[in-house]
Amino acid sequence: MNLLTDLIAWPLSSRPLPSLLLSVPTLLLTMLLSILPANAAGTLPALMPLPSSVSEAEGGFTLTASFTVAYRRLHDDRLTAAVSRNLARLQYRSGIPLAGAAQMSSGPASLTIDVTGSDTAVQGLNEDESYSLIVSPQRIQLTSPSVVGAMHGMETLLQLCVFRNGNPIIPALQLSDSPRFHWRGLMIDTGRHFEPVEVIMRNLDGMALVKLNVFHWHLSDDQGFRAESKLFPKLTGLGSHSEFYTQQQMREVVAYARARGIRVVPEFDIPGHTLSWQVAYATLASSPGPFQLPDRFGIHDEALDPTRQSTYAFLDRFVGEMATIFPDAYFHIGGDESNGKAWLANPRIVAFMKRKGIQDTAALQGYFNRQVLEILKKHGKHMVGWDEVLTPGLPKDVVIQSWRGEASLAHGAIEGYQGILSHPYYLDAEAPAEQHFLADPIPADSKLSPEEQRRILGGEICMWGEQLNPRTMDSRIWPRAAAIAERFWSPATDRDVTSMYSRLQPISLQLETVGLTHISGPQEVLRNLAESKEPVALATLASVVEPASFHERSKSQHTDARTPLDRLVDAVVPDPPSRIEIATQIAEVTSTTTSVDDAAAARQALRERFQSWVQASRVLTTLLSASPRMSDAIPRGEQLGQLGQAGLEALQYLDAGGAPAVWKAQQVQLITDAAKPVALVRFTFLPSLQKLIEASKSSSP
Amino acid sequence: MNLLTDLIAWPLSSRPLPSLLLSVPTLLLTMLLSILPANAAGTLPALMPLPSSVSEAEGGFTLTASFTVAYRRLHDDRLTAAVSRNLARLQYRSGIPLAGAAQMSSGPASLTIDVTGSDTAVQGLNEDESYSLIVSPQRIQLTSPSVVGAMHGMETLLQLCVFRNGNPIIPALQLSDSPRFHWRGLMIDTGRHFEPVEVIMRNLDGMALVKLNVFHWHLSDDQGFRAESKLFPKLTGLGSHSEFYTQQQMREVVAYARARGIRVVPEFDIPGHTLSWQVAYATLASSPGPFQLPDRFGIHDEALDPTRQSTYAFLDRFVGEMATIFPDAYFHIGGDESNGKAWLANPRIVAFMKRKGIQDTAALQGYFNRQVLEILKKHGKHMVGWDEVLTPGLPKDVVIQSWRGEASLAHGAIEGYQGILSHPYYLDAEAPAEQHFLADPIPADSKLSPEEQRRILGGEICMWGEQLNPRTMDSRIWPRAAAIAERFWSPATDRDVTSMYSRLQPISLQLETVGLTHISGPQEVLRNLAESKEPVALATLASVVEPASFHERSKSQHTDARTPLDRLVDAVVPDPPSRIEIATQIAEVTSTTTSVDDAAAARQALRERFQSWVQASRVLTTLLSASPRMSDAIPRGEQLGQLGQAGLEALQYLDAGGAPAVWKAQQVQLITDAAKPVALVRFTFLPSLQKLIEASKSSSP
Repeated sequence: MNLLTDLIAWPLSSRPLPSLLLSVPTLLLTMLLSILPANAAGTLPALMPLPSSVSEAEGGFTLTASFTVAYRRLHDDRLTAAVSRNLARLQYRSGIPLAGAAQMSSGPASLTIDVTGSDTAVQGLNEDESYSLIVSPQRIQLTSPSVVGAMHGMETLLQLCVFRNGNPIIPALQLSDSPRFHWRGLMIDTGRHFEPVEVIMRNLDGMALVKLNVFHWHLSDDQGFRAESKLFPKLTGLGSHSEFYTQQQMREVVAYARARGIRVVPEFDIPGHTLSWQVAYATLASSPGPFQLPDRFGIHDEALDPTRQSTYAFLDRFVGEMATIFPDAYFHIGGDESNGKAWLANPRIVAFMKRKGIQDTAALQGYFNRQVLEILKKHGKHMVGWDEVLTPGLPKDVVIQSWRGEASLAHGAIEGYQGILSHPYYLDAEAPAEQHFLADPIPADSKLSPEEQRRILGGEICMWGEQLNPRTMDSRIWPRAAAIAERFWSPATDRDVTSMYSRLQPISLQLETVGLTHISGPQEVLRNLAESKEPVALATLASVVEPASFHERSKSQHTDARTPLDRLVDAVVPDPPSRIEIATQIAEVTSTTTSVDDAAAARQALRERFQSWVQASRVLTTLLSASPRMSDAIPRGEQLGQLGQAGLEALQYLDAGGAPAVWKAQQVQLITDAAKPVALVRFTFLPSLQKLIEASKSSSP
Repeated sequence: MNLLTDLIAWPLSSRPLPSLLLSVPTLLLTMLLSILPANAAGTLPALMPLPSSVSEAEGGFTLTASFTVAYRRLHDDRLTAAVSRNLARLQYRSGIPLAGAAQMSSGPASLTIDVTGSDTAVQGLNEDESYSLIVSPQRIQLTSPSVVGAMHGMETLLQLCVFRNGNPIIPALQLSDSPRFHWRGLMIDTGRHFEPVEVIMRNLDGMALVKLNVFHWHLSDDQGFRAESKLFPKLTGLGSHSEFYTQQQMREVVAYARARGIRVVPEFDIPGHTLSWQVAYATLASSPGPFQLPDRFGIHDEALDPTRQSTYAFLDRFVGEMATIFPDAYFHIGGDESNGKAWLANPRIVAFMKRKGIQDTAALQGYFNRQVLEILKKHGKHMVGWDEVLTPGLPKDVVIQSWRGEASLAHGAIEGYQGILSHPYYLDAEAPAEQHFLADPIPADSKLSPEEQRRILGGEICMWGEQLNPRTMDSRIWPRAAAIAERFWSPATDRDVTSMYSRLQPISLQLETVGLTHISGPQEVLRNLAESKEPVALATLASVVEPASFHERSKSQHTDARTPLDRLVDAVVPDPPSRIEIATQIAEVTSTTTSVDDAAAARQALRERFQSWVQASRVLTTLLSASPRMSDAIPRGEQLGQLGQAGLEALQYLDAGGAPAVWKAQQVQLITDAAKPVALVRFTFLPSLQKLIEASKSSSP
């Protein structure tokens, strides 16, 4: 099993990669491995996203302190800064002083970067992001038509660094790579909870590492307006609880993103989700007011007044101001979840609809969108909106972002609209990475014509903010977003979940080197909860539970903008490695094809893990009852011990060749109970444990 | 032993604290504990620094969501912001939604804050920082003559939060507190390695938590000039490798510090340590040049030219510009390690000395200082300088910061100068916290008169930057700086090292809640080194080694400004908890007065620890040889296993009642070998292990 995993994790073929991974049977792969030279075999480190094609040669380029860099053709400040930043990271990884690598104007250098095209002041949707890498023992050649492509190549180069015989090397290879989709986005909601600018920046670094290229910045919502406007200062003055981004900060974010090959698409959600606007400027409202910033999440009835010219005059000036900050060609107007109630409650608006022959509030929103579209066009922007903006008569140059799913996206494409898929990439579902990874913007069985398929620009990962704070944000995005980034970048045939997971963990470690706190953050909260530098028992529990989904949490806990988000549920992460580890070990123990040695090793690992649960359980009740932040998890602590005991007994019965039916039934009941919602955290391993329990033959009691 | 530790850790007396801790014999303390009501006994959490006096009553104030705050007398924006910030932290700790606590303009509130004095725009040296807290089950009263004092009181309140029966409470008590010294500083060297502004800010938060009140910002050195000057833009343009603080960032740091009751004293080190100035403006130099930013640390011969009027004209304009950014009354001119060689090599300067009757270069530096002093006075600043500025004829209003130690400081005080002690607080010695903690700016045996003693303003912790980067900075400062902060704040009689250590660990955990990375940072580097999310073996080694001192490292490794600082030595911390833990356990095992149960528990803990060393050692050689970042530590990995084996055998011989003399000699040799320098890390436990080995009677071999 390990051999196969390693093999899939480390692409070694001399042909296009993902197709090889999927089409060549395991046996053949194994044979292939055995005929490759020993020093080339299995030594390519984890790459994510997988490149389009790679062929490995013998040997590699050894990093030394005499590393030099030379540029051919285009050589601008952005490229130099990116190279310097990446060499500092490569220095950290390799231990070789590379940060001050000499730059050579001509002659042979260790790394030659050849950008063949010209750079543009603003990154476009159709930027050519392809690149190629040729690595020999003597030198590294990175070629790309664009600076952005060269930056992607540098990221790949960093991922390629590996130690052989104690020395850091870049394996000799030829690699060529280009993205499947042009639009590969991450949306962060900063409206419902504010996220300081450093949270945004470190997430931009994470995005660059896995070649995501659009930061969709949800900047306003009912609970807060986060973008400073100098024309309309009350937007943040009254509408943000003083938590907002200054114009300078937003410009810094745009520059920081551009330096990493990332476009920034701002979203100002209208006409619904606008209570913060209305608190600041009541004349924008459809309702009489007074308004206040709500703590409650969800859909509020209030909406901007689409019938007044003053609303559009406001938006015209506002969009014009924001256009000076956000140079991207696309501008997101939200448009979701506007329920029309405030419109129907206002006789003046109803009269307007009658006068104009507007049948319903969806049509009124369509009217509103067309006015807004004209404003955006005036300021040189393309419009992006959520599914709801797609109403009859919408011009075809609007991009539809689909939160309703693939069918809705396909419907838009057939109608002639460009689209971005988001529904399967909602991280607040707290679903396993594989589920997101396997969801494709254009599934293999898509009925769309090639022309319609071309309208699918790509996808966006969405991180909504109701249940997040700066301490938890990173751990809910990463590393799962890396798996989705691969979906957006790599060939459609790349669908091997085992390979994906085996690469996800090393990539996760690299993601923390750029400042992300997805590993350290939850550990810090655990230390804080347990009041211990080494919270062994609590960490044992945390390692095998994951947070309830957004909807489960909303249902079972009253959650609003003031709810503290530092409970046990906030210190555990979705899809922790334990789920796959335990499943794999139980598969090895119960399979008849596992070698004796592998089975014994898996059995020993499981035994130790189950014992650690029993041991942790002994102290967890006391520990968990200490603070209201975790006392609701006391049953989970008790269940952990019982499940560990069940696992130990199951192993014993497996050895003995059979288990009493009564015992089995009891354990299954235990698992059924443990699957019920408690404390907003759910165990990750229950189906696997059930398999282990049911693996041994039933004997009479 | 544990009982005593707990007791000392948790002050419970109804009389002034530190004197009690020191004067009452252990037995009496134990009796005292037993007659206190059960719910009051031993429940006060760790406070650091220890307050001047506290008396605990029964019960406590329970934190609930209906928490309210009222202000009496002074109530300004700074105070409101501080309270709001601290309530957010208290919410994190308690799990109770306090962040949006209602503010009441009158009437009884949960927390009443009464600032009796007026606030000043710039915090002065003699600010009254005292405060008092009265907590009853009904309410909390915080009183202070100043906003800064109230902020200190809020920090104490946060440290007081404890869980009883699952509820967060503030124990009922009366507490009054004031600092022993007015000047309680932390110096961070950002000249030799640049530290991003967020590193500075999180350290300011750490300072506030332990009531440090002066941030001494070393802003220029040979290797870099870090403060943007608009009058002299080449200072950073040519003298910083583009790593510097903008004026806006410096203003933000000053505001951030002020918001936390911290003064910012900038240091621009002159006339030596000024290569970065001379690279930018060669006309300031005493030597002909050309100059370049050096990578080498240490003393460089170059110095500003003290004979030219243009030098002073430059400094006049520069100080004037910096004075608009740094409002503090004190301005640090460095003055250290100027060796005079460049002056003596310049005939024009030698002629100047002759003409003016200046005998030697020290006197010439004295001349220079007097000119600079006039400039500072013109801009309303007091001068601070290192020991070397104290030359004959120096006006008495200059403050001397002593890096040469207590004797030098006392000498200055006798001569009439105010002084700040720094020598015993050099964190780059990588010494145990206790060593710093016990060093007193005015030792008990001081021969200084009361008037002379009053000239000792306090002390400053110094964090020099030669061997630090943003990843390691925090872990070299914290938590040791907290122990020193207690030295500067708490009564001189507070000298109990056991108490200090027992409080240091909980405070360390609180320090990470304000964003410090002293725990998470080293863990991240270990994960990165081991390429594993759970680097068990490497962490086992790291937990029992500490970094070599600055001088040891300089001697044995070539270290300059380009040296990568991400090796194993950079991932281990000075004075890790293991040293005290192992020493305590070995003391319990070898002492004849330990109870049987305690001795057995200690023995079991030691056995498990030694076994973990043996186990880790088995995989460490392979692991450590992977990367040049840690391959030099291979011998340490081997020694760890041998020392673990020695410990296990020592425990067996102790049980057996005697050990062969030959065996003992072999083990002592092993310890002697393990004490030799390897890989820049040293074991923390060797003296204790040697005691264990020598504890059993010698038998014939």
